[in-house]
Amino acid sequence: MKREKIDIYKGHIVFTKTKDHFTILENGYVIVKDGKVVDTYTSIPEAYQYVPVTDYGDKFIMPSFNDMHIHAPQFRNRGLCLDINLMDWLFSCTFPEEAKFSNLDYARNVYNILLKGLWKVGNMRSLVYNTIHKDATKLLLNMFLECGLGAYVGKVNMDINAPDYLNEDTEQSLLDTEEILMQYQGISDLVHPIIAPRFVPSCSPKLLCGLGYLAYQYQAPVMSHLSEDIVEMKLVKSMYPQFPNYGSIYNYYGLFGQTPTVMAHCIFSSDEEIELMRKNGVYANHNPTSNCNLGSGMMAVKKFINRGVPVGIGCDVSGGGDISLITVMSYALSVSKMVSLYSNKQLEPLKLSEAFYITTKGGGSFFGKIGSFEPGYEFDALVIEDNYIKFFEYNLYERIQQFIFLGSSENIRERFISGNNIKEPMFLL
Amino acid sequence: MKREKIDIYKGHIVFTKTKDHFTILENGYVIVKDGKVVDTYTSIPEAYQYVPVTDYGDKFIMPSFNDMHIHAPQFRNRGLCLDINLMDWLFSCTFPEEAKFSNLDYARNVYNILLKGLWKVGNMRSLVYNTIHKDATKLLLNMFLECGLGAYVGKVNMDINAPDYLNEDTEQSLLDTEEILMQYQGISDLVHPIIAPRFVPSCSPKLLCGLGYLAYQYQAPVMSHLSEDIVEMKLVKSMYPQFPNYGSIYNYYGLFGQTPTVMAHCIFSSDEEIELMRKNGVYANHNPTSNCNLGSGMMAVKKFINRGVPVGIGCDVSGGGDISLITVMSYALSVSKMVSLYSNKQLEPLKLSEAFYITTKGGGSFFGKIGSFEPGYEFDALVIEDNYIKFFEYNLYERIQQFIFLGSSENIRERFISGNNIKEPMFLL
Repeated sequence: MKREKIDIYKGHIVFTKTKDHFTILENGYVIVKDGKVVDTYTSIPEAYQYVPVTDYGDKFIMPSFNDMHIHAPQFRNRGLCLDINLMDWLFSCTFPEEAKFSNLDYARNVYNILLKGLWKVGNMRSLVYNTIHKDATKLLLNMFLECGLGAYVGKVNMDINAPDYLNEDTEQSLLDTEEILMQYQGISDLVHPIIAPRFVPSCSPKLLCGLGYLAYQYQAPVMSHLSEDIVEMKLVKSMYPQFPNYGSIYNYYGLFGQTPTVMAHCIFSSDEEIELMRKNGVYANHNPTSNCNLGSGMMAVKKFINRGVPVGIGCDVSGGGDISLITVMSYALSVSKMVSLYSNKQLEPLKLSEAFYITTKGGGSFFGKIGSFEPGYEFDALVIEDNYIKFFEYNLYERIQQFIFLGSSENIRERFISGNNIKEPMFLL
Repeated sequence: MKREKIDIYKGHIVFTKTKDHFTILENGYVIVKDGKVVDTYTSIPEAYQYVPVTDYGDKFIMPSFNDMHIHAPQFRNRGLCLDINLMDWLFSCTFPEEAKFSNLDYARNVYNILLKGLWKVGNMRSLVYNTIHKDATKLLLNMFLECGLGAYVGKVNMDINAPDYLNEDTEQSLLDTEEILMQYQGISDLVHPIIAPRFVPSCSPKLLCGLGYLAYQYQAPVMSHLSEDIVEMKLVKSMYPQFPNYGSIYNYYGLFGQTPTVMAHCIFSSDEEIELMRKNGVYANHNPTSNCNLGSGMMAVKKFINRGVPVGIGCDVSGGGDISLITVMSYALSVSKMVSLYSNKQLEPLKLSEAFYITTKGGGSFFGKIGSFEPGYEFDALVIEDNYIKFFEYNLYERIQQFIFLGSSENIRERFISGNNIKEPMFLL
């Protein structure tokens, strides 16, 4: 009989079962069995009296962050080229950088720094775009497997409207994608391949059709970009004038909820597009820092939440600069207040608990039972020491507010994924 | 004959003479005589060959930051109560906290943490609101004098529409203000008193009139809040229906450029109000983090710049959470992009150099020849080590971009004001 591994952690427990409320246990306990949460308690139940307790004292224990959108190969470019709009930014800064990932040594160096960064900021699981390059994508998958962080990693597909050096042969793009699916599907609980067409303007109908078929054949998840930018919207409309909205193009090709799907940005989504997302269970991924940096616009994230579309949040490096989802969370709150104001208060701003929810359980649900401390959830957690408020007295709810608005990765003391305490990645690949 | 003190600093010199361009000297020199910049150089002039050089190697030397708006007594409340609008926020969170400053022990503790914070983030000069309390205001002035940071500190005036515990007797408010002006004017190059009516809704006509007279009599500068929030705008309109705009009320009472004046927020300023500011030389102070946090709105800062209104930037704690003007600067860029988008591109976004300019020379000009390294400017400077980009190669302009979008106070190595290298404040008051 296999012996169960039981851990008990003590601290101020914070999580969001529902989007509307924080669950807060002052000096509470979370009991973890084989990496999964048994439950949270205000005192240790009789049956666990003899299990040793790891006591984090006055620190917080909260679910770790789930990043729904990051481009690994853009990590070197963070903070650069942010005075131009999306399409210019792609062609003048981003595509030239992505081209470098045909060189595996360069790729390894970038991934190395990226993975240390993800660990540092407590993004224990991420949806990660790579470039078109098959070998670099495999390298990134391998490095995730080695370091213990969770991810879906997608080889990007693009066969039209790109510079020559990034324009794929359609057949080869599909073959490379299938090779990665065959090699990496099912080999790990934490690291998976995902299908990642760049976006409609970069993909021929034939490519989209082939990717939809691969998604079906391998029951593989999908991620892409949707309704991000005005110039992009016009381009898509001119390419597919017969379609009622951008999302319906992905839908036509079987890339819009036929398998689990995340669509990033959704700034200019029409009511019909939002309804299609709800019906198909497509995740809307909010990237407020990126959207502000590139001048794209402000997503009405509350509208998606109100209508029952599943919502997560992402740093979208390098449209976004900071990979810390604490920064992105407070930006989301700001943007939602401006959206509310400009809608004449027809749309309420995000509540604090909603911002926390989408950053933990909302996005986490794409990965499984992730982002909460309810029974059966994976114990993905951060231990937080909020040392910026050493001097004054605050109650726990005030400290949570301050963590969201003033906190940073400097406050993170421990990082768990599925019950394992993960140490900083040190690669020797 | 007094011997001159000459210092030479070597590093990558960055500053903005004009708003449209960075001046960048790779491995340059700045020569400082008696605390003032002689000039910047690519090699050391003959006359200075024998002066020892402080070599900061691959680090940047840039003007320090000038914060045009912070409320010292709100420092404890950073990050709290940011899910309500301005007027509710004042009455439920901010006024109760400000009331505590009748207790000088409490006040001293808060100021202590505040001043360490200002030093840490490189805000070498600040415009600081205190509470209504005379003694606490004097304490704050004394603590600024002791620690060597620059400031204008204002005792706040409010005699109507406040809770009883903060409603001043009008005569006493004026007497207290005058006592501070008499005691502190002219005693220091770095620390000065300033007249600080809270805002029109908090001040009776008699109080505004008296403050206007004090400003004239003592030729004292003025700071207040202007056109920040929709509810506030309606309240002001109902109080002064005969005035064409909010600013013209201050103007009527001699508090709008008759002496040097800074007005914060200016989100709902009409064209006429902006023109009055230009004509009177009133500074517009941009507080994008605060404006987003409180859901107030987005100031069209570029409009003020284009029309020739002097512009600075502020953290506005505790409407704003982070006192680092690096954070505020990148927020200003974001907000300006959204304003541009919502104006259908009639207004261009801020350029990077403009954001840097208003944070250094723009706001600095209120304090004197501050915020640039042109000849005759005070050597107010920061030494920056951008260690978040250890691995990759970047040119200097890329590094400046990354500092603005990714930098933090962790990157600051040295802090100068008027040529003096300032150490962390350690108070024994």
